[in-house]
Amino acid sequence: MRWSFKYISVEEAQRIIDKLVSQPLGVEDVDISSAYRRVLAEDVVSRVDVPTHDVTHFDGYALRTSDVRGASPSSPVKLRIKGRAYPSTPRPDVIDAGEALYVTTGSWLPVNADGVLPVEAAIVREGYLEVKYAVKPGEHVIKAGSDVKRGEVILRRGSRLRGQDLTLLTLLGYGKVKVYRRPKVGVISVGDELTEDYEHVEPGKTPNGHALMICSFVERDGGVSMNMGIVRDDPEEIKEVVGKALESCDVVVTISGASKGEKDYVEGVLNELGEPGVVFHGLKIKPGRQTGFAMVGSKPIVMLPGLCHSTIVGYQVVASRVIRNMLGLVVDHEKPLKVKVAVDVKLPQPKGFKRVLFMRVESVEGELLAWPLMGESALVSIPVRAYGYVVFSEGLEEVPKGSLVDLYPLM
Amino acid sequence: MRWSFKYISVEEAQRIIDKLVSQPLGVEDVDISSAYRRVLAEDVVSRVDVPTHDVTHFDGYALRTSDVRGASPSSPVKLRIKGRAYPSTPRPDVIDAGEALYVTTGSWLPVNADGVLPVEAAIVREGYLEVKYAVKPGEHVIKAGSDVKRGEVILRRGSRLRGQDLTLLTLLGYGKVKVYRRPKVGVISVGDELTEDYEHVEPGKTPNGHALMICSFVERDGGVSMNMGIVRDDPEEIKEVVGKALESCDVVVTISGASKGEKDYVEGVLNELGEPGVVFHGLKIKPGRQTGFAMVGSKPIVMLPGLCHSTIVGYQVVASRVIRNMLGLVVDHEKPLKVKVAVDVKLPQPKGFKRVLFMRVESVEGELLAWPLMGESALVSIPVRAYGYVVFSEGLEEVPKGSLVDLYPLM
Repeated sequence: MRWSFKYISVEEAQRIIDKLVSQPLGVEDVDISSAYRRVLAEDVVSRVDVPTHDVTHFDGYALRTSDVRGASPSSPVKLRIKGRAYPSTPRPDVIDAGEALYVTTGSWLPVNADGVLPVEAAIVREGYLEVKYAVKPGEHVIKAGSDVKRGEVILRRGSRLRGQDLTLLTLLGYGKVKVYRRPKVGVISVGDELTEDYEHVEPGKTPNGHALMICSFVERDGGVSMNMGIVRDDPEEIKEVVGKALESCDVVVTISGASKGEKDYVEGVLNELGEPGVVFHGLKIKPGRQTGFAMVGSKPIVMLPGLCHSTIVGYQVVASRVIRNMLGLVVDHEKPLKVKVAVDVKLPQPKGFKRVLFMRVESVEGELLAWPLMGESALVSIPVRAYGYVVFSEGLEEVPKGSLVDLYPLM
Repeated sequence: MRWSFKYISVEEAQRIIDKLVSQPLGVEDVDISSAYRRVLAEDVVSRVDVPTHDVTHFDGYALRTSDVRGASPSSPVKLRIKGRAYPSTPRPDVIDAGEALYVTTGSWLPVNADGVLPVEAAIVREGYLEVKYAVKPGEHVIKAGSDVKRGEVILRRGSRLRGQDLTLLTLLGYGKVKVYRRPKVGVISVGDELTEDYEHVEPGKTPNGHALMICSFVERDGGVSMNMGIVRDDPEEIKEVVGKALESCDVVVTISGASKGEKDYVEGVLNELGEPGVVFHGLKIKPGRQTGFAMVGSKPIVMLPGLCHSTIVGYQVVASRVIRNMLGLVVDHEKPLKVKVAVDVKLPQPKGFKRVLFMRVESVEGELLAWPLMGESALVSIPVRAYGYVVFSEGLEEVPKGSLVDLYPLM
C-alpha cells in the first residue's frame, strides 16, 4: 500500500483544525490554589471596587490637608494624635479639625482625612504631631476602585493564569475559578525497531525517545500527557492500540509510520477506525511535510513523522494547535524573541514550502544573535544545540545577515 | 522597635547570595521519563557515536555509487535488488558489485554501499533496479558519529532539561539521569489583617493572595512550594512558625512585616533564630527596596515586602536567585525579550537606585512595542495588565521613545 501526499499550506491546515476542533473540552471549578497555568473559562468581571474603600499607601499620619496648608519649617502646625489604625482595623475612624491618626500601609483612611504625612517626615512631641510641610489632597492615599473598578473585565476567558492573576482573583472574592479541562493526550510510537530499554539497546533497536519529548511538549502546552508506549509495524496492532487510546484520551498523537514506505500503516488504519478519517496528510513545510491529521468521530488524531526535526515541527504546527484549541486558549502569554541572523542564510526549499531552521542564540553586546544549525532532520543534537526555531516564509531563498526574525524558544 | 535600612546595590546583594548559597542541595537519580525541566547534575559525555553506524536517511535503494557513476536517462544502469533492510534489521547486509538493497529510513547501510537512491527516483522492473542518475558518495547517508561523537560533551551540568534533551539522552543510553534535588520553599505570610477565606472577606481583612503568587513563581523556577499560611503580627508566633518551616524546608520566604513600622517584627525574629541572622535588608531598587535576606545556619530566608510590586521585584531579584543557586542552575534557557519603548518614559528614582517598570507589550507590524504601566506599588492590576517588567539602571532619568530594552516576561 502506498499513499501519495497532497500537500496543503500550514495556514490551510490550521484553518481546518480551527474548524474541526473549535470548542474547548469542558469547564471545571478548581480551587484558586491549584489554578496556576490553567486556562480561564470565564471573563472575570469585578463585582467590587479594589480597594473597596480609600486606604493609606504609607506608614504615617492621616490628616485633613486643609489643616496643614500653611505649614512650614518656620511655622509648623500642631495636630492632636487621636489614635492608631492598622490594615486589620475593621472600620474607619473619624478625625475632626486639628486631629491626626497614626496609620500603617493599607489602613482604612479615616473619615474627613484626605492625605497622609509619611512617618519619615513626622515629628511627634508630647502626643502632638508637628507638621512642617503642606500635604497635598490625595497624597499617599489609594482611592477606592483605583486598582480595579466594579464592573471592569480584568481577566479574559481563554487566558492562561499567572501568579499575579491569582493574587488579583483573591482580591475579587474568588476562592474557586472556572477553567477549561486539560485534554488527555495519548502518545503512541510506531516501529518494529523501537525499545524502551534505553540502557541496553540491542543492534536493530532504537530508543523510543521521541515519545518523552512529545509528552514534555504536551505538558508544557497544558495538556495531560499519557505515554502509551510502542506498537509494532502491524496494522492490526496499530488499530487495536489507537482504538483503545481513543476511548481513554481526548486526542491521540502517533509518532512515525506516517510516511509512504511499505511499512507505513498509520494512515490506512485511521481511515478504517471511523469517519471522517484522515483529513489532511502532507504540509508545505520542511522539515515536517509528512505530518497528518485525522478525526475519528469527534476525536482528533495527529500523525507525526518519525525523524526528529519533522516530529518537532509537526508537533508545533499541528498537535500544539489542536491541544490549545481544546484548552480554550485565546490569549497566550508566549511571544517569540526578535533575534538578528548572524550570517547570510540560504534556504533550500521546494517551491511553495515554508522552511524551519533550528537556531543557536547568543547574547552579544546586548543583542540576540542567531546562527542556523544545518543538518539532516534525523540529527537529534541539532534541536539540543538550538535555543529555538524560526519559520521562514515560502518563496524566501536567502536571508541576509543582520535580518531580524521571530524565534520561538523550544522548551 | 525600628530599623533603618542600609541600602545595598542589587549586584552586591546577588554577590552575597552567590557566596552564601553557592552549592546545589544534592544529587538524585531520576527516571528519564520524569526528568523534564529538572536540572542536570552531571556533564553528559557521550560514550557512543550517534548513530553508532552509517544509516540511511531515506527510503530507497542503497548502492555502490561507483556502479552508477555513468548512469543517465539515455544509458541507465541495471542493478540486481538483493533484498530489503529495515531499521529493525539487527546486522548490516552486504552488497557486491552490480547489487542494490531496498532500505527504509534509519536502516543500517549495507557493507560496500556508499549512497542511497531515493524511492521516488527508483524504477524497478522484473526484480532489477534501473538507475538513471548518478548518486554521489555519501548521498542520503548519515555517517556514524555525525549526530554526536563519542567523547563529546553534549549537555552541560546545570542546564534545565527540555523535551529534545530527553530524546538525546535515550540515544546515549540513559534510562536514569543525575539531577539536582528541587529545593522545598516554605512561604509564610505575615499580617493580622490576612485571611484565606477569599470568598467571605470581613472588613479589616485582606485575602492572602500574595502567597499563591509566590508559590507559582517558586514552581515556575523549579522549586517545590509549600504554602505555610498566615502568621499574626506577633514576634512569638512568627518565631515559632519560621522556626518550624526551617526544619522542614530548604528555604523560607516571608511576605510582609519587613518594613520599619512598629509592627514589623520579621527582621528581629530572624536575628533571634540563629547566626548569622539578617545579612542585608534594603536594596537600591524601586519597587522592592525593603527586601531582605538572612541565613540561620545554612538555611536562607528571604524577606519580601508586602506591597504587590515590591513583593514581585523582591522575589525576582533575591528569592529566585537563591532558588536557582540551590537548584544548581547554570545554563538558563530563558532570555529577555527585546522590546521597543512606545513612549518617552520618565524614571523618578532616588539617587543610585534601579527602577523597575511593569510594561504592557503589543506586537505592532511585526515589532514588539512596550508601554509602561504607572501606579502605586499596591495596585495588583498593574502586573496583571503587564506582560513583564524592565529593570532600568541607576542614574537613568529618561528613556526616549523608540529605545530597545530587555523585558522579562512575568509568568
